[in-house]
Amino acid sequence: MNLEPQWIVGFVDGEGCFYVGINANSDMTTGFQVLPEFTVVQHERDVQILQALKAHFGCGVVRTNHGDRMAYRVRSKEHLLERIIPFFEKHSLKTKKRSDFAKFRRIVRMMGEGTHLADEGLEEIRRIASQMNRGQSR
Amino acid sequence: MNLEPQWIVGFVDGEGCFYVGINANSDMTTGFQVLPEFTVVQHERDVQILQALKAHFGCGVVRTNHGDRMAYRVRSKEHLLERIIPFFEKHSLKTKKRSDFAKFRRIVRMMGEGTHLADEGLEEIRRIASQMNRGQSR
Repeated sequence: MNLEPQWIVGFVDGEGCFYVGINANSDMTTGFQVLPEFTVVQHERDVQILQALKAHFGCGVVRTNHGDRMAYRVRSKEHLLERIIPFFEKHSLKTKKRSDFAKFRRIVRMMGEGTHLADEGLEEIRRIASQMNRGQSR
Repeated sequence: MNLEPQWIVGFVDGEGCFYVGINANSDMTTGFQVLPEFTVVQHERDVQILQALKAHFGCGVVRTNHGDRMAYRVRSKEHLLERIIPFFEKHSLKTKKRSDFAKFRRIVRMMGEGTHLADEGLEEIRRIASQMNRGQSR
């Protein structure tokens, strides 16, 4: 299945999620690990769409999410920086998810520079992440 | 806001719904009214997307759905036959929603021929409608 860029943008405007988790992790100097992820969840009947997204971006995994839901997920900082973020810079989202993407991009780029490894950078990331994914009822 | 056809297809693959309601109505000879509708629901923060869909198709209404959700909705048989259905015939859906669309199209066309006004046609429509929108968790 061949996906056109504008179809992907429309589908991600509807079903995609740019999320940054911040989890306690005693292995980290700051005591916390920053975990950005790009996710698209679908009912298992449409797993071939998730596989087509994986093929298009050339990265990520397709796994069971929960119950009869499957997820396409990209967590690798390198793949986010080199494949996912440039795609949505070239092909702008049209919903308010665009502003979540902008915050997501900012955080992943900060991580690319190692900013999240010091307390001050972590606090800045926490502040930005707290303003993401508001007004979504899912 | 200008929406490209492939963006619309991707967004509707994610967020759209082709639905046929069959409601008891004593004004009808069969005792039932067939009510097809094409709907896209979004959080109110993205109402401008729904307005852009309305402008693109040149028909339908944008109204409050419930709570903080808004809906773009097309119920007119003529608008479904002349605008919505031809668009998705030209630009194919990619998810399994494509098969819901095919059933929806079949029912609306049967209605265009008046098939729903007799008991036999109504039963056929009821049978097709019962096979729509399965495997959706919303």
